[in-house]
Amino acid sequence: MKILLFAGSLRKDSLNKKVVRFTDKLLKSNLDLKTTVVDLQTLNIPVYDGDIETAGIPEGVKTLAALVASANAIIISSPEYNGSMSSPLKNTLDWLSRVKPLPITKKPILMLGASPGALGATRGLAHARWPLETLGNFLYPEAMGFMHADQAFDENEDLKDPVQLAKLQKLINSFIEYAGKLK
Amino acid sequence: MKILLFAGSLRKDSLNKKVVRFTDKLLKSNLDLKTTVVDLQTLNIPVYDGDIETAGIPEGVKTLAALVASANAIIISSPEYNGSMSSPLKNTLDWLSRVKPLPITKKPILMLGASPGALGATRGLAHARWPLETLGNFLYPEAMGFMHADQAFDENEDLKDPVQLAKLQKLINSFIEYAGKLK
Amino acid sequence: MKILLFAGSLRKDSLNKKVVRFTDKLLKSNLDLKTTVVDLQTLNIPVYDGDIETAGIPEGVKTLAALVASANAIIISSPEYNGSMSSPLKNTLDWLSRVKPLPITKKPILMLGASPGALGATRGLAHARWPLETLGNFLYPEAMGFMHADQAFDENEDLKDPVQLAKLQKLINSFIEYAGKLK
Amino acid sequence: MKILLFAGSLRKDSLNKKVVRFTDKLLKSNLDLKTTVVDLQTLNIPVYDGDIETAGIPEGVKTLAALVASANAIIISSPEYNGSMSSPLKNTLDWLSRVKPLPITKKPILMLGASPGALGATRGLAHARWPLETLGNFLYPEAMGFMHADQAFDENEDLKDPVQLAKLQKLINSFIEYAGKLK
Repeated sequence: MKILLFAGSLRKDSLNKKVVRFTDKLLKSNLDLKTTVVDLQTLNIPVYDGDIETAGIPEGVKTLAALVASANAIIISSPEYNGSMSSPLKNTLDWLSRVKPLPITKKPILMLGASPGALGATRGLAHARWPLETLGNFLYPEAMGFMHADQAFDENEDLKDPVQLAKLQKLINSFIEYAGKLK
Repeated sequence: MKILLFAGSLRKDSLNKKVVRFTDKLLKSNLDLKTTVVDLQTLNIPVYDGDIETAGIPEGVKTLAALVASANAIIISSPEYNGSMSSPLKNTLDWLSRVKPLPITKKPILMLGASPGALGATRGLAHARWPLETLGNFLYPEAMGFMHADQAFDENEDLKDPVQLAKLQKLINSFIEYAGKLK
Repeated sequence: MKILLFAGSLRKDSLNKKVVRFTDKLLKSNLDLKTTVVDLQTLNIPVYDGDIETAGIPEGVKTLAALVASANAIIISSPEYNGSMSSPLKNTLDWLSRVKPLPITKKPILMLGASPGALGATRGLAHARWPLETLGNFLYPEAMGFMHADQAFDENEDLKDPVQLAKLQKLINSFIEYAGKLK
Repeated sequence: MKILLFAGSLRKDSLNKKVVRFTDKLLKSNLDLKTTVVDLQTLNIPVYDGDIETAGIPEGVKTLAALVASANAIIISSPEYNGSMSSPLKNTLDWLSRVKPLPITKKPILMLGASPGALGATRGLAHARWPLETLGNFLYPEAMGFMHADQAFDENEDLKDPVQLAKLQKLINSFIEYAGKLK
């Protein structure tokens, strides 16, 4: 089974990119899985503009669309911006929705989120589900928000708290089982 | 009273830009109002990226922030993308939220929306309210969605349907009264 | 596979009860399915009150909880009240969430909705997904809203429009396949 | 100015009723305000049912509708049930929306919320805004969630934490000023 992982924020030191890399590390212990991590910043996707689309779908969108289309499941870790989903995530989804055939549909998706605050991006995760479901994807009901995420990782970028680690491992296992059933 | 108007889509032939221009025309008959229409496409705002922010807030964001800060009220006409708010609108709000002092707070805001479909962008308008309220703005409770908007305007870019026109005029009058009270 | 169906409104002539009965008729042609239709009005469930709960979970809640627990999948047809989910549906879910062990979790759920208006209860369906997902259920991404539903059924309570009928039949088939995979 | 306050939960020992009573105490120091606290449990409102409505709007709904209609502003403190608004609150709003003329429209409304958990009912507050705005009310953008509310009050039912108290007092003052402008 092929799993695609990406973060919903662009900056290099993104806490959500750390969550993605750590989750990828956990997945790698399962030899049945082939994982790909993509960094949205490197794709240089512009803000959605119908005039750009008419001139041609940007290369970064095409690259991501191919990765999404070939994945059996997707894991997204995204911050919350202004009480709602991040604009890089929404913008990426809006571009993907313009590619024919639609690459991001009928995909099992797990939402994670990290923030330095006390709410752990939970409102942002809730809002991000809706466009993904509108596009026809299978959102895993449980999500996980990492609060105070700036303190959550050690110098090896491993999650420090064993309780949180066990929770994430269990969530990933359940999600992989769910994605396997829907394949 | 100064009113700022903009559309939540970028492309030149945007239906929402037509709604903005027509609303501006209606507002101009009220001599107490000074209106400004801004076209987000001309501002060249990139997707929000903390690394860009560290290097310096983009000029387009600064330009818009100054216009927003000096406005007494804002009218936004925005499409719906994938059942939720448009990414150009969300991205613009996320950038504005990074400007100090926060320009987009305590502003009376009216939401309009247009789509060629039968739902008139109503779900998108509903979702867009939340980040605007999180930022502390006064969202006017009533909104107006123009369905089948590709058929709604004549060659002078005037709204064809007198019932819709009367509804829009009444909504604008109520909103201006509301914004005046909150000044 | 056992399918439980119910409407999110209480009144006897509910349009959503008609949608439920017609959907049940369609399901009955599949001999692998065993369907149960429950009418929330007959369950006499009071508004959720912690003091009532302390005195004892109401019998109607226990009856529904047993039906839900034994179902492999659930189909709900619900109206929209004031732009959001119906209070009978939310109230029923809030009571079910107090039963131990939680009966309404990990259930594949299909949302339908009917209204006499032009939006077909679509905003209500969207809002109702969230508490169901919070409880850990597998919401089927596609939903179907019947607009102008007061005109949609003939005197045999069959759906008049063959296009709508074909769409509903296809949606039900996809949902049953999805629920079968998740069993 | 007349302020109506009520909690979105029914049980006698409700944390949200404590928030309402304490907020009422703070408001009473302002001699320009006349406050009324109503306890929804005493109104005995059934779950919304069109058949009950046809037989006659329940007395508890009429009583509340009269209080709402005569209020200049409303303060609601509501718990979160299953990640969304409480069913007693949604049910009360759905009944009020059936009274003619609509009592709950164009009212300035402040949302508070309390929960024993770490999120302080914030998701529930967000969801409850939408039906209130759909009905045409002026929701104050800022809300306040009391987390760990079971530990928040002393034996006189006063808020223990001076920082939280100062925040609530400031929020109330801003809301009263807002409601005064919209009168």
